[in-house]
Amino acid sequence: MLAISQYREAIIDYLHEKIKVKEPANLYEPMVYILEQGGKRLRPVLVLMATEIFDCNYKKALDAALAIEIFHNFSLVHDDIMDDAPLRRGKETVHEKWDINTGILSGDAMLINAYQLFESYEGDTFKELSKLFTKTAIEVCEGQQYDIDFETRDNVSIENYLKMIEYKTAVLVGASLQMGAIVAQTSTACKEAIYQYGRLLGIAFQLQDDYLDAFGDPETFGKQLGGDIIENKKTFLYLKTLELATRNEALQLEHLYSISPIENSGKIEAVKSLFESSGAAELTRKEIQVYTDKAFKILEKIQLPEEKKGPLRNFGEMLMERQV
Amino acid sequence: MLAISQYREAIIDYLHEKIKVKEPANLYEPMVYILEQGGKRLRPVLVLMATEIFDCNYKKALDAALAIEIFHNFSLVHDDIMDDAPLRRGKETVHEKWDINTGILSGDAMLINAYQLFESYEGDTFKELSKLFTKTAIEVCEGQQYDIDFETRDNVSIENYLKMIEYKTAVLVGASLQMGAIVAQTSTACKEAIYQYGRLLGIAFQLQDDYLDAFGDPETFGKQLGGDIIENKKTFLYLKTLELATRNEALQLEHLYSISPIENSGKIEAVKSLFESSGAAELTRKEIQVYTDKAFKILEKIQLPEEKKGPLRNFGEMLMERQV
Repeated sequence: MLAISQYREAIIDYLHEKIKVKEPANLYEPMVYILEQGGKRLRPVLVLMATEIFDCNYKKALDAALAIEIFHNFSLVHDDIMDDAPLRRGKETVHEKWDINTGILSGDAMLINAYQLFESYEGDTFKELSKLFTKTAIEVCEGQQYDIDFETRDNVSIENYLKMIEYKTAVLVGASLQMGAIVAQTSTACKEAIYQYGRLLGIAFQLQDDYLDAFGDPETFGKQLGGDIIENKKTFLYLKTLELATRNEALQLEHLYSISPIENSGKIEAVKSLFESSGAAELTRKEIQVYTDKAFKILEKIQLPEEKKGPLRNFGEMLMERQV
Repeated sequence: MLAISQYREAIIDYLHEKIKVKEPANLYEPMVYILEQGGKRLRPVLVLMATEIFDCNYKKALDAALAIEIFHNFSLVHDDIMDDAPLRRGKETVHEKWDINTGILSGDAMLINAYQLFESYEGDTFKELSKLFTKTAIEVCEGQQYDIDFETRDNVSIENYLKMIEYKTAVLVGASLQMGAIVAQTSTACKEAIYQYGRLLGIAFQLQDDYLDAFGDPETFGKQLGGDIIENKKTFLYLKTLELATRNEALQLEHLYSISPIENSGKIEAVKSLFESSGAAELTRKEIQVYTDKAFKILEKIQLPEEKKGPLRNFGEMLMERQV
């Protein structure tokens, strides 16, 4: 097996080979622009790793890996329009650099392009990949819709929230790993187990991301600390605080989430203090651990020699080791 | 074989059975809204007709036909955002009734949903349908991009224009017919020929639509007469006039296409008179006939008994018989 950085290089080389600007340039330039911007390439790396873990050369999985990466970037282009986001990975978003129409149409072409990449696989493998991709893509759309709905709903349950992050983020991690397993033509049990490993790790990762948004180290957390609080986002921390808090604390939190002061630091500190005093912060840390443990337990049960599981476990640990 | 109206009913019944609002409702309500609005259902009817022409029960093709109809409506939802269109089939467009974000996300879900409908087909048929669908969908996106590009380009050739309408409109007509042929598992030669019949007829139809926009009968032409002239659209008539006109006439036309008067009737009449005097109007009528004749010639050559070809020929004649 290769190192993560080598899989990343392989996918970037393949991307350069496959994705080029052609006519009409206004359709394909934005596609190349967003795909060349970088990002961690986590999902395609997972496709390649899973393929090799199940004893198949990663090169066979390059098309599936690239499809996943293109789909992920399609969803970023359309989500950035919906969120009116000016920047992505420190650069102008597609609809900022061009316009909304370009973002819509190039995104559409990317989604279709992702499907096209599966065509290099034969019969059953093609259908299996396509079906998994479609199921996952619909869930990602549904997750995005729930996320939008939650902004204006005041009856979001913890269960609703967990389903939202599962669909919006976690299923694509699971699907990436399962695609590798499909390309390697391993057993149904292994395909299912590795999907669950990715899905559970994806949920743990997203919960951690929510947690770090409030309590992360400003030195190492990539985004603006307190961003979710400023935007009044109903995260796990927020919902759990409402559940655990006294009536008085809950009213205080709801009030804080109804204001948008110009100077945010006071609001951020007050909200964080409610997250802590209610016990929600501690409970969130525990919940992250519960999902992480579940993920690793599933990994343990997969019928694979230890040296095969190692890289997958390391990957999960690396993902979860960001300091709080 | 059934009558066109019966195929239409079959597809509408199937649509009602398959496409229902589910959670998250904000994602699926717009999908049901646009699909229930009606429209002529030409494309799915063509899928069903082609299936029966090649001796296969149309019921086997319902999923493919519905996929085509959903894809067509997906493209309308996204195009209407891009064109900022308030109305579609006399009703509010999705982004008007809801908002742009809803139009983007519901459209995405429709595109993915179309792919999902092919999953009911086995192995080779599934792959053949999926590949044709992907190729066609990419061409439709490219056609839409060319259409947008042409608005601001002043070097559009007749060849460019024909490619644009081929991609934006005609390939989906060809693909609809070919999907029926694929479901019926007919020969490669028949699949190719019926695709070409649809493609050529689609080009003829679009050229006729351009022509009728200027010279149609206000009583029977569905849209506002002169709409393309008001919007300064570079149609076949416009481009052909520039090619054929004297230098003076060409300058006049370019001037007319640079102004947007509040009262349009004078501009419309002046442009139409240039379309006529240059000979472009007559040439366009001839070009429509050339494409129609090519289409029917291909139909003649298809190895099918006469009673099978009849309905397809009638369909083409019906499409082209709108009076000028």
